[in-house]
Amino acid sequence: MKETQITILERPKLRSPILIEGLPGQGQVGKLAVDHLIHELKAKRFAELYSPYFPPQVLVLEGGLLRPMRNEFYYVNLGEKGLDLVLLVGDFQGLVGTGQYEIAGRIIDFCVGLGVKRAYTLGGYGTGRMPKHPRVFGSATCEELVKEFMACGAVCQEPGNSVVGASGLLLGLGKSRGIEGTCLLGETYGYIVDARAAQAVLEVLSRILGIEVDMGELEERAKRTEQLLAKMREEEQKKLERIQESLRGHEEISYV
Amino acid sequence: MKETQITILERPKLRSPILIEGLPGQGQVGKLAVDHLIHELKAKRFAELYSPYFPPQVLVLEGGLLRPMRNEFYYVNLGEKGLDLVLLVGDFQGLVGTGQYEIAGRIIDFCVGLGVKRAYTLGGYGTGRMPKHPRVFGSATCEELVKEFMACGAVCQEPGNSVVGASGLLLGLGKSRGIEGTCLLGETYGYIVDARAAQAVLEVLSRILGIEVDMGELEERAKRTEQLLAKMREEEQKKLERIQESLRGHEEISYV
Amino acid sequence: MKETQITILERPKLRSPILIEGLPGQGQVGKLAVDHLIHELKAKRFAELYSPYFPPQVLVLEGGLLRPMRNEFYYVNLGEKGLDLVLLVGDFQGLVGTGQYEIAGRIIDFCVGLGVKRAYTLGGYGTGRMPKHPRVFGSATCEELVKEFMACGAVCQEPGNSVVGASGLLLGLGKSRGIEGTCLLGETYGYIVDARAAQAVLEVLSRILGIEVDMGELEERAKRTEQLLAKMREEEQKKLERIQESLRGHEEISYV
Amino acid sequence: MKETQITILERPKLRSPILIEGLPGQGQVGKLAVDHLIHELKAKRFAELYSPYFPPQVLVLEGGLLRPMRNEFYYVNLGEKGLDLVLLVGDFQGLVGTGQYEIAGRIIDFCVGLGVKRAYTLGGYGTGRMPKHPRVFGSATCEELVKEFMACGAVCQEPGNSVVGASGLLLGLGKSRGIEGTCLLGETYGYIVDARAAQAVLEVLSRILGIEVDMGELEERAKRTEQLLAKMREEEQKKLERIQESLRGHEEISYV
Repeated sequence: MKETQITILERPKLRSPILIEGLPGQGQVGKLAVDHLIHELKAKRFAELYSPYFPPQVLVLEGGLLRPMRNEFYYVNLGEKGLDLVLLVGDFQGLVGTGQYEIAGRIIDFCVGLGVKRAYTLGGYGTGRMPKHPRVFGSATCEELVKEFMACGAVCQEPGNSVVGASGLLLGLGKSRGIEGTCLLGETYGYIVDARAAQAVLEVLSRILGIEVDMGELEERAKRTEQLLAKMREEEQKKLERIQESLRGHEEISYV
Repeated sequence: MKETQITILERPKLRSPILIEGLPGQGQVGKLAVDHLIHELKAKRFAELYSPYFPPQVLVLEGGLLRPMRNEFYYVNLGEKGLDLVLLVGDFQGLVGTGQYEIAGRIIDFCVGLGVKRAYTLGGYGTGRMPKHPRVFGSATCEELVKEFMACGAVCQEPGNSVVGASGLLLGLGKSRGIEGTCLLGETYGYIVDARAAQAVLEVLSRILGIEVDMGELEERAKRTEQLLAKMREEEQKKLERIQESLRGHEEISYV
Repeated sequence: MKETQITILERPKLRSPILIEGLPGQGQVGKLAVDHLIHELKAKRFAELYSPYFPPQVLVLEGGLLRPMRNEFYYVNLGEKGLDLVLLVGDFQGLVGTGQYEIAGRIIDFCVGLGVKRAYTLGGYGTGRMPKHPRVFGSATCEELVKEFMACGAVCQEPGNSVVGASGLLLGLGKSRGIEGTCLLGETYGYIVDARAAQAVLEVLSRILGIEVDMGELEERAKRTEQLLAKMREEEQKKLERIQESLRGHEEISYV
Repeated sequence: MKETQITILERPKLRSPILIEGLPGQGQVGKLAVDHLIHELKAKRFAELYSPYFPPQVLVLEGGLLRPMRNEFYYVNLGEKGLDLVLLVGDFQGLVGTGQYEIAGRIIDFCVGLGVKRAYTLGGYGTGRMPKHPRVFGSATCEELVKEFMACGAVCQEPGNSVVGASGLLLGLGKSRGIEGTCLLGETYGYIVDARAAQAVLEVLSRILGIEVDMGELEERAKRTEQLLAKMREEEQKKLERIQESLRGHEEISYV
């Protein structure tokens, strides 16, 4: 395999669908959010993307089965709203810069073919903090969409920043192909899988799309992570105290 | 040379041959196993693969002769069984991820042309242990083959793991071209050439194929490695004891 | 996107225009100089270059707007002089060597199409010093242009040196396509954005082109940088003195 | 520039010329040897190779002139011998493995077009020693050429070794295109430009070709290097003695 390729499993009828991307990245925020959306909206897989820029390996599933690394396209018709969504998730982003550009280019080609005119790309923005109520940082390819995300609870990303990876490139490449788009990044610590930030991002997105998404499972997951972190912090604290105590003991008998 | 290419030396008659891959990897398990199989079954080289993703160097052989880095295809007709094998071994795997994908893609193209419908890829799985009776971890592209390897003495690879390199990619890429396959990884320490693990893998494979393979040479090699390791451990132990002794001596005279 | 591409916004009438390049590099000297020139000459953007060899990210602008990484072509007709300029600036150079060659090749193709016969590439030359009056080191593809830059205040670059990146490659690749050119590198410290060196380079260039450029803003910027550096040096000095003082204090009471 | 390309300056008449390669490498042995040969035989440049796999920079020559990085082909007709040589030297080898393969492939294409049937590739073999009479290690693509180099003073390279870079790849790729060849590597320290090893290699080569080459300049250069090294060693020795002396002094007064 020398080039990124997309395998089509089904050709659904889609009316100017909206692309929603959540590939792995900081805090797995985008991935958690779009995986959750796929689950809640009962979206259906209809295409798969394979690329030589993914790691050269295959994944072992339950029961000893293997499958290649891939990205996956799902769709859902929210009939009563007249709203069609194409959802993009996956195992990996491209490993090198040129691979990222090739993959994003193929995705945009495919989306143009599907009639996509708008995209929302979701991810995390590492601030080294893990607030109870994470902010959502928005940026977009046109002013209309900036107004939209600001009206729905996101704040403007600071100028001079970059949006790295698929969430940025899909919007950058899409613009010249007639796709306007918004990037929504949930404030996250950076290294911890962060369901709280995913929830924050989904809240902004669902307001934008005018849909309702049950957050129960994400909420549960966020709470479990927070309990785990609280416990870890507590143990760190105890360890620290033991060390300080033993140091005090040491100070008393050692003057060298 | 800009692309991976295969040079054909002979066009053997093969009836739906089975591909067996053993390229270099962890503990050289796959390579040892398939080199042994080629030797025991008196398989014949019929094609060579060259790639710009191999290291940019040539190999010096006995008697001052040179040859390029390559992978090699052998075949054997096990007439009485109606069983034809294509065996793949070589000096190296591709050095970078995109190279691994290109090479695996070329191999699959070639195998499809040969009529291959099934593949077994062999390798090692580093666990940091070196047991007397290494387990063989199996994974496969379809349930039928999972049942097959479990009936022949392998256990299921844990879900969430990856199979890295040619052993994984050949199965991942082959599946979409009509080749179903199984990966058999022998438990190995990781950094030591491990004939014991190669033997374990070959035992499972020969049960699957219903052939008999004399393991004498692999057994010999495994024993030599084990003696070497035992000796190394013994010397390590002695060294350690000498250090401890000298430290005890030191403690007696030094209080600073 | 698999290849570097140029998007044309406008097709200006240009009579054998002169290319002036100032992409990011040492001390941002070339970028500062050509950005300043574009501003002062009121040059107009007419083409943009996009490349998979730029970092895989997009830039956040004022007001939450996004745009892809790019290089930009500007033009200006200095009517009274019969002098047309094409000015090249941008966010990045190619990230890897092969990318640098691909991008430079595309730029030269484009410039040949525009009728460019001469190029001046601007940059910095890190010497680890930051003189009040930075020298400008020149090198060129033909002797006529060497004489020209020497007559206008630049000195010859030492033989054996290399000119790295776009400033070098554009001249190297241009030569075989009928474009003769000169590289002007301003002496700079290396890690500090250096408006003083940019000014020195522009002074040589404006003498060569026979144009006048108001240096007011660059002069201002250079002064601000110098004040900042002076302040930093002063604080470093104070810190050093405090450390030395505290060490002296320590010496008096400690003999171990 | 996306691909390696060869620019032809002149189309000399060559009768089955022999290729002699000496690109930069260990101890610059091959480069010194072939540069010397070009100088002594008054060979003439007739083609240049440019590649995006060379470093992205241009070279500053005497007098402020610039030129791109390149490899160069020279030729000479040794009329009285009926012997035509093509000599290959240059600034760099390809920076990455795939680049090395692309460049070597282009060179072989070009040489096949010139009617080359035999190649000698020259280089250094780092042993960490710098003997007065360096050995020359030979390896070749056929037994006839092994006999030839052994009859002319080279010894067989040890089996299991690799010949890295152009000296290896040109022979590896040439073989399948009808070019048989020999690699001659002079024993060298590794990091020092080694005219003595270049001389040793040229002595074997000139015996093989039946030509005489004046070694005066290489001999001079080797002597200068040896004097320099002797002086460096002497100073190292003195420094060491001073340190030991000062340590002895220290021991006498310090018991902590």
